[in-house]
Amino acid sequence: MKAVVIGLGLIGGSLALNLMKNKFISTVYGIDANKEHEKEALELKLVHEIIEFDKINTCDLIFLCVPVGGIISIVKNLKNIPKTTTIIEFGSTKLSILNAVPNELKEQFILAHPMAGTEHNGPKAAFAELFKNAVCVLCNAENTSVFHQHRTIELLSNIGMKITFMNAINHDHHSAIISHLPHVISFSLANYVLECEDKKNILHLAGGSFADMSRIAKSSPAMWESIFVENKNNVLNALNGFINELENFKNMLENNEYENLNSWLKHANELKKIL
Amino acid sequence: MKAVVIGLGLIGGSLALNLMKNKFISTVYGIDANKEHEKEALELKLVHEIIEFDKINTCDLIFLCVPVGGIISIVKNLKNIPKTTTIIEFGSTKLSILNAVPNELKEQFILAHPMAGTEHNGPKAAFAELFKNAVCVLCNAENTSVFHQHRTIELLSNIGMKITFMNAINHDHHSAIISHLPHVISFSLANYVLECEDKKNILHLAGGSFADMSRIAKSSPAMWESIFVENKNNVLNALNGFINELENFKNMLENNEYENLNSWLKHANELKKIL
Repeated sequence: MKAVVIGLGLIGGSLALNLMKNKFISTVYGIDANKEHEKEALELKLVHEIIEFDKINTCDLIFLCVPVGGIISIVKNLKNIPKTTTIIEFGSTKLSILNAVPNELKEQFILAHPMAGTEHNGPKAAFAELFKNAVCVLCNAENTSVFHQHRTIELLSNIGMKITFMNAINHDHHSAIISHLPHVISFSLANYVLECEDKKNILHLAGGSFADMSRIAKSSPAMWESIFVENKNNVLNALNGFINELENFKNMLENNEYENLNSWLKHANELKKIL
Repeated sequence: MKAVVIGLGLIGGSLALNLMKNKFISTVYGIDANKEHEKEALELKLVHEIIEFDKINTCDLIFLCVPVGGIISIVKNLKNIPKTTTIIEFGSTKLSILNAVPNELKEQFILAHPMAGTEHNGPKAAFAELFKNAVCVLCNAENTSVFHQHRTIELLSNIGMKITFMNAINHDHHSAIISHLPHVISFSLANYVLECEDKKNILHLAGGSFADMSRIAKSSPAMWESIFVENKNNVLNALNGFINELENFKNMLENNEYENLNSWLKHANELKKIL
């Protein structure tokens, strides 16, 4: 089989590294809007070859690993794709992508969200182990043919991912709370602290807590802008709920409600039972 | 020298382990309000012996490693402490402790804040390497005699800590922003997500981001309640500033100000230059 990975950053590059090791795949092609990234991907041996976009219909597997907005643009421009080609997108939101897929591609189009990432980006951030033991959510899988479904599941589980199923609406709702909101928070915390504090204080007082809480604020602005925009309503709802929680804490502290405050802190500790 | 560690949790227990290895210290005593913790500390060999509170004036070094409120209570009850005994407190806020120190103890009383910790607590959470390469902030060190200052600096730098100096007011202000605020956020995020989501969704969608952002929500409620209460005004100010930052993000997203949103995300990335 021949595969093409469109978008050679952290996610696409790491995927390409895994495809290069897959014995069922003879050639891994790469495409990136950034010519520098294409050059790096070749140098780092993430892919065998860089091709032009109009050559992708020669591939059995097409992976879309660009920000959500980019996936939507590409989906609308897919032409003459053979019915036996599996198209797999790795975006972080699903409903707007699902709605953009033309009817004639629905059977062969897989919406997958690998719950994996780091704060680094670009081809140099790629590493083969990124997906090892990560959950991969497949959305509205029942829309696709058994052939494309099975091929995808074999391929992704072979990379080491744990497959789970969800519909796109639920995916976007829950991702907003569990994944996108923490990113909003981390970007906001980083910006707030950078406004208030100088380098010396940050270095002296950060400890492990601030470092952990601000790590994902180093993530790709292009990728996260696209996620926030495509999942706007869910993100705003989650953010409003979170601001209410902060106001709740504020009220307890302001009004010296120590018993409630203690119960609230203990309730947060319940997370130990899950993670 | 003989040392006593009051409070045998993560911080006190880890300190005691280091004191046990110090060739200048012959005996390490321990005290904890929780009798179970005293028993555990002995079993884990964190200390040589458990003593009663009224025996602490036989020690050359007294370490206070209980929550801030507890430190303030103890400080007010210190009686007949020899002038050659160094008293070192390891609280996370400073001004309320500084204000509680009786005049007769000021020369021998050290306010130290080791910027080290994990989300675990109790004697079993203790480990000797906790302080290795951590910053230790000494507050208002100029109030203490050279003898007690030098003894403290030798001891703490010997454990592997990087010493830095700050006054208590600045410490509490900057700690509220860089350390206490991230804890408020993490406790709030954990509570909000636990209210909205079930175990399955959390496990499937968490990835590394939510895990990192919620890690410190597993920290000791007693310790953090005390910090929030003792540093109330600074914490509330920092929280209000952070809520403004969240509202700023919300407005940009709501009003489709993509250019501003992108600049704001890029600005957060500036943190890469510091941490």
